This record gives sequence, C-alpha cells and structure tokens, in this order.
Amino acid sequence: MTRPVTSTDVARRAGVSQSAVSRAFSQGASIAPETRRKVLEAAAELNYRPNRIPAIMLSGRSRMVGVVVGGLSNPFYASTLECLATSLRAAGLQILLVHVDDALTLDSALDQLLSYRVDAVVTALAIGSQRAARMLSDLAIPVICFNSRLTGPWISTVVSNNHAAGLTAAQVFESCGVTRPAWLAGPVRNAASRARGHGFIAGVRANSARWPDGVLEMRGDDSYESGYDAIRRLLARGERPDGLFSSNDLMACGAMDALRQHGSLNCPDNVVMMGYDNIPQAGWHAYGLTSFDQQVDCLVDAATQLLDAALGPDGGPVSRTRVVDARLVTRRSTARLI
Amino acid sequence: MTRPVTSTDVARRAGVSQSAVSRAFSQGASIAPETRRKVLEAAAELNYRPNRIPAIMLSGRSRMVGVVVGGLSNPFYASTLECLATSLRAAGLQILLVHVDDALTLDSALDQLLSYRVDAVVTALAIGSQRAARMLSDLAIPVICFNSRLTGPWISTVVSNNHAAGLTAAQVFESCGVTRPAWLAGPVRNAASRARGHGFIAGVRANSARWPDGVLEMRGDDSYESGYDAIRRLLARGERPDGLFSSNDLMACGAMDALRQHGSLNCPDNVVMMGYDNIPQAGWHAYGLTSFDQQVDCLVDAATQLLDAALGPDGGPVSRTRVVDARLVTRRSTARLI
Repeated sequence: MTRPVTSTDVARRAGVSQSAVSRAFSQGASIAPETRRKVLEAAAELNYRPNRIPAIMLSGRSRMVGVVVGGLSNPFYASTLECLATSLRAAGLQILLVHVDDALTLDSALDQLLSYRVDAVVTALAIGSQRAARMLSDLAIPVICFNSRLTGPWISTVVSNNHAAGLTAAQVFESCGVTRPAWLAGPVRNAASRARGHGFIAGVRANSARWPDGVLEMRGDDSYESGYDAIRRLLARGERPDGLFSSNDLMACGAMDALRQHGSLNCPDNVVMMGYDNIPQAGWHAYGLTSFDQQVDCLVDAATQLLDAALGPDGGPVSRTRVVDARLVTRRSTARLI
Repeated sequence: MTRPVTSTDVARRAGVSQSAVSRAFSQGASIAPETRRKVLEAAAELNYRPNRIPAIMLSGRSRMVGVVVGGLSNPFYASTLECLATSLRAAGLQILLVHVDDALTLDSALDQLLSYRVDAVVTALAIGSQRAARMLSDLAIPVICFNSRLTGPWISTVVSNNHAAGLTAAQVFESCGVTRPAWLAGPVRNAASRARGHGFIAGVRANSARWPDGVLEMRGDDSYESGYDAIRRLLARGERPDGLFSSNDLMACGAMDALRQHGSLNCPDNVVMMGYDNIPQAGWHAYGLTSFDQQVDCLVDAATQLLDAALGPDGGPVSRTRVVDARLVTRRSTARLI
C-alpha cells in the first residue's frame, strides 16, 4: 500500500501553509477564497482526503451521532429518518446508523450504543423500559428520543401532542354526527398510542349525553394487517361503529380495506375515519384518509435544538421535553355522515 | 470533565490482564467465558466503553462503511436499508449514513464520501454519471451499488434481472389475453427502468402476430402521483389499454386508483396490471397487485459477498457484477381477462 497523501503534501503542491489546508477543510474556518481554491485544486490532483481521526483524538469529540432506526416499513419512520439526516448534516454532524428490529423502542440498540464512541444519540423510537433509560443515562451523552414517556438524566424527548389530538378526534366525530365511536389502539407498550386513546376516550366521555355507551375499543399492532383483521373481527361480531379513530394510518388503511371488502359499509357514507401520522398513503385516492400530521419537520427541528443545547457549554445531565402539536389534515374520510 | 475509564482500569477491577479486556470486546476473539463475564461486569460497574479509535489509527481500517440512501418514501428503498443494516452489522461493520435528496443516484453524496474515512461504500442507488463513476473509482475503496449501469475500477454492482422480468411480463399478458399492452416507464435516467422496458417491448415485438401495434408507452417519475396522472392523461386521450406493466409498484398503485376513479374500467376485469418491487402496498387489499419481487435479501447477500471479497486480500481495483433474478408474485391484478 502506498503512503497516504497528507495535508503537508497538499500544502506543498498548493504553495500554502499546512494550517491553510486544515482551514480549507474545516467548516466555518476563516480562509481567503483564492487560498481555499488553491488547496482544493491541489487536494483533487493528489486525491487527498482529510483525516478526521487525529482531530477526534485531540477533542474527544467524534462529531458523530448515533441514530437508532427501526420499523422503517412504516413510512412515518422512513420520512423521519430522511428529515433527521438532513438536519444533522446541516449541523455538521455525521450519522452512525444503528438498526433495531423493533419498530417501537431502541432498547435492543443498547449493546451497540455502549460500544460506539458517539457524541449523542437521536432516535424517533421511544425508550421501552426503566432499565434501558438507566443504561442510556449512564452513557453520559445526550440522548434525544421521540414520543418517549420514560426519560432520565441526559435524556430529552420530543413528543407529539397525542392527548390533545385524541380530544380533537372526538370533536370531529361530534361534528360528523357519529353515534357509535370506536378506537383502534396500537400495542400496549406504545406510549404515544396510549396518550391518543386517553385523549379520545376523555373527549367521548365528556359528551356522555351524545355518547352514553362510550367508546368501542379494539387493538392492533400498528401494522396494516392488524387494522384489517381488527375490523373483520368487529364486523363478524355484528358491531357497527360509524366513527373510527385509528392510532396510526397504516392500521386505518387496513381498516378501510376491511370495510370495503365487507360491502355493506362504506367510508365516508356510513363510517367516518381518522388516522395519525399523515403518511403518503393517507393521501392516496383509494384512502383519502383524514389524519393528524405529526409535523416531522417540527419534531426534527425541536430534536436538533435539544441536541445543540445538550452538546453546548450548558449541556450535561439535564432532561428536557418539547411538545409539538399535531396538525389535522382533513380529507374525504370525514366528509360525510350527519 | 473527569478522566475517561480505560481498559487498564477495567483490567485492575476484574483482576485480569489488559489483553483479556481487549479480547472481551473484540468480535470472535478467543477468551474463557468466565474471564469474559468478569470483564463485562467490571466494565459495567465502571461504565467503561471500549475506544475503537486507537485500533483504527493502527490498522488504517475504520470498519466503517458509508451507506448512501435516498428516496426512502419508496418502501423498496426503506426495506433495502433495513436489510443492508442487518447484514453489515452481522459482518461486524458499522454504518456511516449519507443521505441524498435524489431517489435514483448517489452522485450528490460525493462531497461527503470524499471527506469521510470509510473502508467502503454500499448503496441501493445507482451511479448517475461517468464523472461520478470516475470520482468514486478515485477513492480507491470498494463501492457496491445496486442496479447501476455505470461502473469502473473498485466499483461493483448488483442488478435485478430487469430485462428478463420485462420479457416475463409480456408472457403473462399473453396468457391473460391482453390485446393492447401498455408500458409505464420511470425517469429516463433510471437505468433499471430502461432495462425493464426494453425487455417488455422486446417480448411484445416478438409476438407481432398478436400485438401488431406494439406497446403504448407512457412515462412517470417513479412516484404514485405520476402513475395516477399518466393514466388520467391516457384515458382522457381516449386510449384503452387492457394490460399495463409499470416500472415500479408506486406508479402502478397510482395507475390503479386512476382507473378506479374513471369508473368505466376496472382492474382486473377490463385491465390487467403488473408492477415491480413487491412493496407492502402491492399486497394491500385495495390493490392486490401482481409484482416482481427484487428479493432484497438476495441483493443484499450478493452485495455483502462482493464487499467481503473487496475488503479481503484479493480486493483491489476490480469491478464485478452480480445478477439476481426477480421473483414473480401473482395477485388479483392479473387474475382475469381472456
């Protein structure tokens, strides 16, 4: 193997100082445009790539953030990852990707996170157990996660205003004239789903004159198939809800397809429906699903701000929470009844 | 900041040698189970994390692979990323994520790849230009990409057998009794789409007795919306194809929804349809779309094997191609006609 090209080689070729080469490759460093041009030309000719590792060893900072992903078959998580990647890159951070099979919690990423030298962890997944929260706190690096009920020292969270959205869903159903409201929950350990359900059920109970029988409750596992199966079972039991709030859009799409197949019921003529996440499929013509948009841009902005603060001089073992309101996107699925 | 815990501290606490600590944290290293247990307990008590950076400096190898992603709103790319992450992790490699806004080529990732010290690059995106291929070759590290027509020294590619699948689509349409076949292409610069179209058109031309008018050709941009719009325009012109092969599933879903809205045509009674990628939505009840499965597992296995070979002693500026056959998944959308 030949000797790697060093910044000294580039400096010599460009006829500039070695510090000028270093500045040319440092984000935000002061350097005359002409000097920078000379350095980049020489670097291209010599096929030079700056080596960040000595800088990492000196600073103790890798500028590398562990991003834990899972459940990417849910388009919500896929778009969150894209948004997060763009935002972290703009902040001059690199992303070490840690993938977990779980679509809800980052707990199984702990082994990997323990062995990597990252400056921080950012994830759209929640923390699943007190033990995981404790181990993450022990890393003594900032951890930012979405929709996590569990936090701890060093761990901050950005949450969608799930409870408020649940209340809003009940109001929308009231204005549609729904007489038999139903709730399709996600898995028990999905804290965001629980908060959505609590809000919705509270909204229905607050209107007990209209809805004396309360809420018809079902449960899925956040997948399309589980929404489809839940409605099939419900209809087979002879239940006939006329307003369905689903904890996420994937299950709502499955539920709508089950109604369609059943034949006698139709959304929105006999059943109005609402979902959560505003995934692209909610806008597809086969669905036209009214949904709560988590505003991924705002969630990611809030996460990046928390990260900036945590990596700054006032960082440390603090724990902050940022709440982002969901935005109601109204489509055909709530356009009828009454 | 307090002094970081070192492997010497762990060795002292565990009552073992420093080399035992190092072996306990090295994948595949030989160590007695009891010794390993002692080390891991001491490490947990001291909150020790192994520092990989000195090892990187000594070996010149970061064990880090740059993974370039884009277009994650297409479920095919999202599932490929999940599969790739699992496979690279099993190979003991870490993933540095590089995100590009482009859903087709990795060209805009070049700046980032040039400044990172990665051992290799793996991506489901293709190379878009000769210039990008040259710059990637100049990195002198293995680059493995999917469905790329352009390659070069150090660059290998894993391709779906797109042309063969196009021929198969024509055969399926023949067996369905299609009289007016149509092809919905992706963007011009999508080489995989071009190969699918060439195969399909060749299959139709080979059967000119049955199909004297050849193929009705349309173009979209690989998105759901573009498939929807293409069919709306086609129907508005008074064209009535009875067999549609779409370059990907997202466009096929859009095309099917446009047919549904039009009212007078219905899949599969009057129009049979086929897509490519076998994304989860192809299996949703609203679509039931026959599709070619690229067999992401096989593509990723092939990519990981190419990577292993390229990082091994026989690596170097070679260029290899692996072809993976697509698997036809038959659903309702090709269940009628004749």
